[in-house]
Amino acid sequence: MTPVVAIVGHAKSGKTTLIEGLIAEFRRRGRRAAAVKHAHHDFQLDRPGKDSRRYADAGCESIAIVGPHRSAVLKWHDPGYPFSEILEAAGSGADLVLVEGLSGGPYPRIEVYRAALGKGLRCDAGDLLAVVTDDPAPEGCRRFAPQDLGALAAFIEAHAAAAPERRTALRVNGEAVPLGAFTQSIVANTILGLISSLKGVSKIDTVSVSIRAADGANSGASTP
Amino acid sequence: MTPVVAIVGHAKSGKTTLIEGLIAEFRRRGRRAAAVKHAHHDFQLDRPGKDSRRYADAGCESIAIVGPHRSAVLKWHDPGYPFSEILEAAGSGADLVLVEGLSGGPYPRIEVYRAALGKGLRCDAGDLLAVVTDDPAPEGCRRFAPQDLGALAAFIEAHAAAAPERRTALRVNGEAVPLGAFTQSIVANTILGLISSLKGVSKIDTVSVSIRAADGANSGASTP
Repeated sequence: MTPVVAIVGHAKSGKTTLIEGLIAEFRRRGRRAAAVKHAHHDFQLDRPGKDSRRYADAGCESIAIVGPHRSAVLKWHDPGYPFSEILEAAGSGADLVLVEGLSGGPYPRIEVYRAALGKGLRCDAGDLLAVVTDDPAPEGCRRFAPQDLGALAAFIEAHAAAAPERRTALRVNGEAVPLGAFTQSIVANTILGLISSLKGVSKIDTVSVSIRAADGANSGASTP
Repeated sequence: MTPVVAIVGHAKSGKTTLIEGLIAEFRRRGRRAAAVKHAHHDFQLDRPGKDSRRYADAGCESIAIVGPHRSAVLKWHDPGYPFSEILEAAGSGADLVLVEGLSGGPYPRIEVYRAALGKGLRCDAGDLLAVVTDDPAPEGCRRFAPQDLGALAAFIEAHAAAAPERRTALRVNGEAVPLGAFTQSIVANTILGLISSLKGVSKIDTVSVSIRAADGANSGASTP
């Protein structure tokens, strides 16, 4: 799983501008950043009359549009849809995922702070990796100036590299199954051992395996 | 992997209209359909001034937008980007993926045909599951009328249920590794055996495991 950092802060604190700057800074450093944005309302990306809108109006569960250099996957889901799946899709192929405004999630957080908003920090100082602000940093917080994107990017990279890594992730029937370090290691080592001698497999950095367990069971696509 | 059917045909044959009709028909039958559309040109979904466009302009590799009931993942990629990854993203959570216009892909194909276009079939008749047409079907082809969406949907469902299934899919370093039936079965049985006694795992329909192989190696996110 690609490392994730959440950029949090009150409305109008400058989260979007900071993420925009970090994306460009990571690009200058040869890193591929992905960004995840929360929309409070359901958004409409596809325009009326477009095929994708026709499919949506017909009741399509998800629509992918594939161009020569771009692709888009639009999905409809229940509010309980696992956010980790979206993170995984966004992060695949990227070196780092910047999530805008997930102040309650289980990800390391950096808060953008402006004293002029008169609200104090949005998160507990102890829950923050750092604070990005032109003001003096709240006590006990590592501070970066919003202009100093190089230093902040280096700090995020170092943190991502040092972060304890979830080495092995397992999903059964679409749901994540939490694994302890020992189990992660057994599952990873078994699979790595199993596949390392396959034709076409040499140096292994990442592996993903998907299995449909029951022979012949083809969930949902059988004749009713 | 969710079953895939490609809806092929010449331009103006009626592919989009057929897919639109099938999506609605599958919905009536309680099935969740996903659709994949090819765009010949790179499309622009995000509007100027929107945060997602700002991130794109800053050089973001991929952007996810998450709303209460919708999500979108926009990606930039090389022309050689693995189509299977897009199919997987679109198909996750769906019962069937309808792909518009992939006449050369390794997926079962249904051709929409109009004699008035004066072009004959786009694909070899022997490569088609069926032909959807108001005209007489070309020799040797199973024919459905475009209006008879119920019969066509039932046919597709039966085909998807009967199709020899790729039970186990493996990707190493992001690339698919083709597995023979025997190897698929060994990999699947080993992993199923390994995880079946884990806490929180009972009936297993699908499994996905992802592994980052090298301890401490966190590709691309280390300090340069």
